[in-house]
Amino acid sequence: MIDLGDLRVPPSLVRFELLKEDARTRARRGRLHTPHGTVETPVFMPVGTAGAVKAIAPDDLTRLGASMILGNTYHLMLRPGADLVGELGGLHRFSAWNGPMLTDSGGFQVFSLAQKRKISEEGAAFQSHLDGSAHLLTPERAVELQETLGADVIMAFDECPPALADRAYFEASLARTTRWLHRCVAAWSRSRSSLFGIVQGGLSLELRRRHAEEVCAVDLPGYALGGYSVGEEPAAMHAGVAEAAPLLPRDKPRYLMGVGTPLDLVTCIAAGVDMFDCVLPTRTARNGLLYTSGGRVVIKNAQYARDAGPLDPACACYTCRTFSRAYLRHLFVAKEISAMRLNTLHNLHFFLDLMAKARAALEAGTFADWAAAFTAGPAAR
Amino acid sequence: MIDLGDLRVPPSLVRFELLKEDARTRARRGRLHTPHGTVETPVFMPVGTAGAVKAIAPDDLTRLGASMILGNTYHLMLRPGADLVGELGGLHRFSAWNGPMLTDSGGFQVFSLAQKRKISEEGAAFQSHLDGSAHLLTPERAVELQETLGADVIMAFDECPPALADRAYFEASLARTTRWLHRCVAAWSRSRSSLFGIVQGGLSLELRRRHAEEVCAVDLPGYALGGYSVGEEPAAMHAGVAEAAPLLPRDKPRYLMGVGTPLDLVTCIAAGVDMFDCVLPTRTARNGLLYTSGGRVVIKNAQYARDAGPLDPACACYTCRTFSRAYLRHLFVAKEISAMRLNTLHNLHFFLDLMAKARAALEAGTFADWAAAFTAGPAAR
Repeated sequence: MIDLGDLRVPPSLVRFELLKEDARTRARRGRLHTPHGTVETPVFMPVGTAGAVKAIAPDDLTRLGASMILGNTYHLMLRPGADLVGELGGLHRFSAWNGPMLTDSGGFQVFSLAQKRKISEEGAAFQSHLDGSAHLLTPERAVELQETLGADVIMAFDECPPALADRAYFEASLARTTRWLHRCVAAWSRSRSSLFGIVQGGLSLELRRRHAEEVCAVDLPGYALGGYSVGEEPAAMHAGVAEAAPLLPRDKPRYLMGVGTPLDLVTCIAAGVDMFDCVLPTRTARNGLLYTSGGRVVIKNAQYARDAGPLDPACACYTCRTFSRAYLRHLFVAKEISAMRLNTLHNLHFFLDLMAKARAALEAGTFADWAAAFTAGPAAR
Repeated sequence: MIDLGDLRVPPSLVRFELLKEDARTRARRGRLHTPHGTVETPVFMPVGTAGAVKAIAPDDLTRLGASMILGNTYHLMLRPGADLVGELGGLHRFSAWNGPMLTDSGGFQVFSLAQKRKISEEGAAFQSHLDGSAHLLTPERAVELQETLGADVIMAFDECPPALADRAYFEASLARTTRWLHRCVAAWSRSRSSLFGIVQGGLSLELRRRHAEEVCAVDLPGYALGGYSVGEEPAAMHAGVAEAAPLLPRDKPRYLMGVGTPLDLVTCIAAGVDMFDCVLPTRTARNGLLYTSGGRVVIKNAQYARDAGPLDPACACYTCRTFSRAYLRHLFVAKEISAMRLNTLHNLHFFLDLMAKARAALEAGTFADWAAAFTAGPAAR
């Protein structure tokens, strides 16, 4: 619930409540108050690319205990179109998800999916990967599209520089992303969506520090770290996030975009990150890679053909409570559609349950030991 | 519940209880008592081809009010194999469906799906459509496979003659199917599965009558009509079923295999059929054809792109209670996996609800009027 006595932002915007800081790590236990409900942090946000978390439905998300989900502006602007979603009441009503929601700016997908993209000071021109149609995404347009979709949190339009770009490219890109942030803020109506800024800078602490100063000079309801998990080694990403997270304001939510594996999540919670999103659990589920307390399971493997046991004996999800590994293997091998959903239910349960355990450990003051045990165990591999 | 005072078959077998016969039609209201629960008839059985009703899960079926489902022996014998299913406790445990279940004999799929099939007195030799492997299905093997799968109702191994076969082929085929029935009965252990006989004969009343006499001379817990809805006009099928259904014993369940549309179901209930199965609602759902109280909806049509209304305002299913036509169209056009499930939930709800309404009308003594109104209305078209 929003505490009206402690509001520093309009009630239509999100507000972060820092409940507790861990004594032995930089981990934080907090709450993100949004117009569509309160999110307990650290939080993992399932990705609902095209207005739907792939293979499952909103009631599945509720049963899984998902509190906040993410939508991709790039996908939605191309199909069915942000204006259509807006006409139909916004993305919450359109997709029947009434809880907290975040949209990205579309920038990352333009750089990873679109064809013939061209970046200029104005923005990013590109062709749709669906039909080749021409589009221009600018800071103003990205904010307008996101405000039309109506998520609780919207993201600034930024460039995620290629990991192998040289120093000169990085410096020019970061300066442009800062100018784009100022244009985003100028375009932002503040009516119902809260704008988060994004700090880039790759693996350079110097660039991260400089960009964090520029971005955090703008008073915003939250800040994100972008440009991680784009091909670098996990250890390098973990070290980078550990350096960069403390550069973000203590009293604002910190969102690490596009991360990650169970090991990444626990490690980056310890670095002080509050919010995560990643397609990993849902995408791998559809490919038959399942995360369990005993480690990763490739369900199509022949060793499971006659395995009468549950996928994960320690798991309370519908899939594990109901079916054997042999049956899940059969569904996957037979290309049954329900394999996609049952696998997705399990992987999301694993990721969401991991976050719930991290929060419980933070509350109990046992996070450091819990995290050390988890990262040394089979489930983190 | 099984009424032990009125058992004429072993308690491990199914028993039909005829509750009421309609005064103005041949429709019947009954109950099929099975080892896995009681089925209110007339009943529509969703088809779980490969050990799963495509795109949905057992808890979905329970919420939809499905009481009995069907499995395909042909598919299961090829993948994952009946022996494997048997080792894992049978098809009920394997697929986590604890309600009544029926399996077909595999014959129909051999004739419609398999390659290089060859029929002899012994049985049907064929090659798998999956990997070309060679198989032989005989009456004895079909019963053995089905008893291994362990459904409550199993079907005799028969040939469904090609609709355009000549009279001589039909006569030879029917005589062989009768000989195969005797071999099925000899192979049947009666331990937990109840064997139903199948009457063939195409659209010839004379052949149907002769074959019904042969098949019903064997005292079995139930009888089916096969060989309908194999390409003939609906009106010819309706006329044929109206002639053939009364040829089956009054005190046993009558099962019309592989039928049909909503119009078929209501018409054939009126002819005295108690049990139906068909892939129609699930297959059409995956193709975006949806049955509603206002008629069929092709959800990909552009007219629904901005349609904020529910798919069927008269429907209480999750899909209709939760989403707009515009959203369902978006999911289908975007090839989202959840479109398959949400569409399947709706179509199955429509078919199962139709049967519930038929049963209620039979109980209220208003079936003839209800059926006339339904068949004249938009939902039957």
